[in-house]
Amino acid sequence: MAKKIGVQTYKLDNPVYIVGRSSIVGDKEAKGPLSKYFLKSTTDDTMGESTYEKSERSFMQKAISFCLKNSKLNNADIDILIGGDLLNQMVTTNYTAEKFGWPYIGVYSACSTMSESLAVAACLLDANVGKYIMCVTGSHFASAERQFRGPLELASQRQTYSQWTVTAMGATILGKQGKGPKITHVCFGKVVNYGVKDIANMGAAMAPAAMETLVQFFLDTKTSPNDYDLIITGDLGKFGSDVLKDLLLQKGFKVGKNFSDCGHIIYDASQKTFQGGSGAGCSASVLNSYIVDKMEQKVFRKVIFMPTGALMSTTSNQQGDSIPCISHLILLEI
Amino acid sequence: MAKKIGVQTYKLDNPVYIVGRSSIVGDKEAKGPLSKYFLKSTTDDTMGESTYEKSERSFMQKAISFCLKNSKLNNADIDILIGGDLLNQMVTTNYTAEKFGWPYIGVYSACSTMSESLAVAACLLDANVGKYIMCVTGSHFASAERQFRGPLELASQRQTYSQWTVTAMGATILGKQGKGPKITHVCFGKVVNYGVKDIANMGAAMAPAAMETLVQFFLDTKTSPNDYDLIITGDLGKFGSDVLKDLLLQKGFKVGKNFSDCGHIIYDASQKTFQGGSGAGCSASVLNSYIVDKMEQKVFRKVIFMPTGALMSTTSNQQGDSIPCISHLILLEI
Repeated sequence: MAKKIGVQTYKLDNPVYIVGRSSIVGDKEAKGPLSKYFLKSTTDDTMGESTYEKSERSFMQKAISFCLKNSKLNNADIDILIGGDLLNQMVTTNYTAEKFGWPYIGVYSACSTMSESLAVAACLLDANVGKYIMCVTGSHFASAERQFRGPLELASQRQTYSQWTVTAMGATILGKQGKGPKITHVCFGKVVNYGVKDIANMGAAMAPAAMETLVQFFLDTKTSPNDYDLIITGDLGKFGSDVLKDLLLQKGFKVGKNFSDCGHIIYDASQKTFQGGSGAGCSASVLNSYIVDKMEQKVFRKVIFMPTGALMSTTSNQQGDSIPCISHLILLEI
Repeated sequence: MAKKIGVQTYKLDNPVYIVGRSSIVGDKEAKGPLSKYFLKSTTDDTMGESTYEKSERSFMQKAISFCLKNSKLNNADIDILIGGDLLNQMVTTNYTAEKFGWPYIGVYSACSTMSESLAVAACLLDANVGKYIMCVTGSHFASAERQFRGPLELASQRQTYSQWTVTAMGATILGKQGKGPKITHVCFGKVVNYGVKDIANMGAAMAPAAMETLVQFFLDTKTSPNDYDLIITGDLGKFGSDVLKDLLLQKGFKVGKNFSDCGHIIYDASQKTFQGGSGAGCSASVLNSYIVDKMEQKVFRKVIFMPTGALMSTTSNQQGDSIPCISHLILLEI
């Protein structure tokens, strides 16, 4: 049974454990600073498929297969699949769910889908709904560009404050018993909208959502930034991270060297992604590689993982609406 | 704590109750056979908004406000909002969540989103995550036509086996205590794809998903159709309902007069919707009006509610993929 702490946070009485994980990335990501942490990579981002949408599915299917292998569990051990993706109607995950045949709970919070999946899975396991739940999400640069911006063939010039949608997937199996990092708290985010309308500037749009969730989590748990070894957002990028730090300062919280952002660290400046990586696969792949690796090595013992999602569509953007954002938070401990 | 029964079904040790509900429908739906059951209706489907997408949001916001009023709870009593909708990236629910300011879990399973929301909410409440959870979904004829088929101005001719996306919303508040109908079992569906590629023929595409979930539920609970007062699908329509009955017969289960489909009963033949209603709002509005009304009157005491969702996108369809479908089931008892 979970216990509500403060306004928005739930402490799980029975923590749930990461019992399997995988990350698979594309060519550009494999050439970035986190290269050695990713389980798998490919030099062919099409995965030999005829469309980018099918390539994205292939990435996701491989992430799940590698995750099962990593956990040493069988297909039949998984009770439920929870996940989602950026493509309209979440087709990547829908078709992947068909392949594996597990009961499937589709969830969506854009680039915060990894923490949403994990938080929902943790609560379900706490309610004894399932023994093992597979969580998955990810993104593909080419399919995301085509859907949200313009086809690659258009060769649009990118803004200097923009980010690069990563081609990457991450999968995690949560279980009720284990030895690895465990989820002890979850905090479901609220939708926050500070009025940013520029869909090229995701960092600025999403930073307020991260601030609101993080501040509420500190208040709920009566903790402060120094109580954590790592506080890591999903894909605010360099600029968005700076905005978040400023917003936190205004609320009286100062994050230091223990703050990081998956989007900021997945590429280096020479890769010309400008503000860094974005996409649901950014935080999903970094969690299931670098972050959990370092937790298993006890470099980090207490980690706040809180990707952010921008919840607009191309239609809402074209109709002049500003961008609603959200950040779901989980606390990982070992 | 929940208990797994058989392969795919969970029995909740602490049933969760419907403590508030609302339905709001458009003009065409208000002229149909279920007219007297709906809480609210409007003769202006635009809701006075400048775009159909904003009209859809207005419907959803009203459904939630009426639901709160019906429950006699305050805004501050709601711990979490769970919901989704058919528009790309679920913008209707995202912007609605912004308005109300609750922690928000976005879920998507197309026209099965009402049962998915309720099933996830029931499990969370069972895990003591929240005391009251608001579930919402719905659809709007004009925004759905524009996104999935063609703009209304195109005046495309409709196929005789097609259905009509309802303009309707339904909202339900679940709580841990109550006197009304309660959810006692949940069964998360698997993705089922029998190879149908015709997006005008949703009934045929979705019927197999309903069959698979229902048969598994009967096997898991060692029950048969006669044990239930009502078995109701979401929007198979007339044709899809017939396909489901045939598929069930092949598996040795015969449903009789206790079988119904929300899409089949929401319009009558004179309204020229051909096979009936569809859309996430179809089952959501019928559940929160007709079905729960009849349960409160003890006409139905044991109801299987199992809408079906078609999980394709326009892109997957245009790329030649067949339609993956799903049906999440909840058992309601009073």
